[in-house]
Amino acid sequence: MKIGIVGLGLIGGSLALEFGKQGHELWGSSRSAATCQIAVDRHVVHRASPDLASLAPVDIAFICTPIPYVLPTLKTLAGILRPEAIATDVASVKGAIVTAATELWPNFVGGHPMAGTTQQGIDAAQFDLFAGCTYVITPVKQTQPEAISTLESLMQPLNLTVVTAAPEIHDAAVAWISHLPAMVSAALVTACGTPPPEELQLAQQLASSGFRDTSRVGGGNPELGTAMAQFNREALLRSLYTYRDRLDGLIQLVEAEDWSGLFELFQQARVWRVPFVE
Amino acid sequence: MKIGIVGLGLIGGSLALEFGKQGHELWGSSRSAATCQIAVDRHVVHRASPDLASLAPVDIAFICTPIPYVLPTLKTLAGILRPEAIATDVASVKGAIVTAATELWPNFVGGHPMAGTTQQGIDAAQFDLFAGCTYVITPVKQTQPEAISTLESLMQPLNLTVVTAAPEIHDAAVAWISHLPAMVSAALVTACGTPPPEELQLAQQLASSGFRDTSRVGGGNPELGTAMAQFNREALLRSLYTYRDRLDGLIQLVEAEDWSGLFELFQQARVWRVPFVE
Repeated sequence: MKIGIVGLGLIGGSLALEFGKQGHELWGSSRSAATCQIAVDRHVVHRASPDLASLAPVDIAFICTPIPYVLPTLKTLAGILRPEAIATDVASVKGAIVTAATELWPNFVGGHPMAGTTQQGIDAAQFDLFAGCTYVITPVKQTQPEAISTLESLMQPLNLTVVTAAPEIHDAAVAWISHLPAMVSAALVTACGTPPPEELQLAQQLASSGFRDTSRVGGGNPELGTAMAQFNREALLRSLYTYRDRLDGLIQLVEAEDWSGLFELFQQARVWRVPFVE
Repeated sequence: MKIGIVGLGLIGGSLALEFGKQGHELWGSSRSAATCQIAVDRHVVHRASPDLASLAPVDIAFICTPIPYVLPTLKTLAGILRPEAIATDVASVKGAIVTAATELWPNFVGGHPMAGTTQQGIDAAQFDLFAGCTYVITPVKQTQPEAISTLESLMQPLNLTVVTAAPEIHDAAVAWISHLPAMVSAALVTACGTPPPEELQLAQQLASSGFRDTSRVGGGNPELGTAMAQFNREALLRSLYTYRDRLDGLIQLVEAEDWSGLFELFQQARVWRVPFVE
């Protein structure tokens, strides 16, 4: 199959590596001519150009840009792709993209591979990034069944689990397990930076794995943290309001010295965490 | 030196292993006769008994029980130890212990090794648990300088860093980097357990390393989570109030769609996290 990859970073580059291994023919595109050159030199794709018009021959185009560029990229591709070509994306929010994208290109189907590392860019592209991960496909009523089955068949050999969910269910789910943790964690770090010098210095000295883990996603890429909120605002706000209620409840238990109530809350957290992490 | 260890769990057992390697003579004590037997059989201590009276000959007694048992244990030991013997503890809160303990036993000095694993009990005791960790000693005005220097000299060979801090500074610091993260993380898990079935099921399926890390300390030992709040209530409440303010500020940015403000918050989190984790 002739596959186009727009955005040759961690996800786009890694998808290209897998598709190349499967014997597909690969057209790459990146805004950066240097990245295009690297992708060709390293045999990540067979050819690459910053000019999206070069993708005219492909059967399916994967848009692997940062979230804000998905729709603008598709708008340009809509004047380039053959009418029977499929377009798809890999963005971590779907409601803000899928309906608008389907209007721009009826043969669009939304996707989201739940995979990543802390690295970014073409240098981070790697084989087996998707092994064991979940790939969410988010069709809407207008989505063509052939677009779904083509995407599924491309994913089959990648040793991952394909799941189908409505965009709004996807967005609500990732708000809970990905976007809310990032906000909670960022608020934690900015709170921990406020104590007076002597206290702050000792806190920094004593911080170990507990702080490291809880603060990790909040101390990550600011562009991504902002985009999560911007493009999944409603679902995230619902999660944030529920979280604030729970936090207030916890604070009230501590204020009231209700230690059996706090014990129950921690007990519940221990039990409820299991199905998320096993 | 003749060293007593009360509480033969992860910390007490691991301290005993290190002190034994240094050639000290070790008296162990645990409420559980079975644990005493295991500790002797495995050469963790030279002798052990559930009867605290057996510790009469020691030069220094380490109280390594759970937090609620530190003061009651010291009260009993005060009728047993020789007047020149030193008593110390390893509890993760100090204000609630050190002043009261010094009144019970003038030759008391508080301590807190910042070390641990997810394991508990004598089976978790291990060599090198303290290598590279920070051992906080928390003297008050009445603390005997000899008690501090004896504790320091015992710690020197363990390849760790000894830090001295007032109990209230210690408690404020651990509230920020240990107790607050546990509360934030527990509130996160209990919030994430609330969505309707279809959303919850997908969330559980999609949760990966971000959720795993952010939820880890909140899904831990409920006894410990409760004790942190109970015995460090004031410092924890101060941290919780600051945290709630930061969270409210973040929520307001999302509500107001102030994306440059949110970007700055994430940028600040990324920069502020560094001195805590490097």
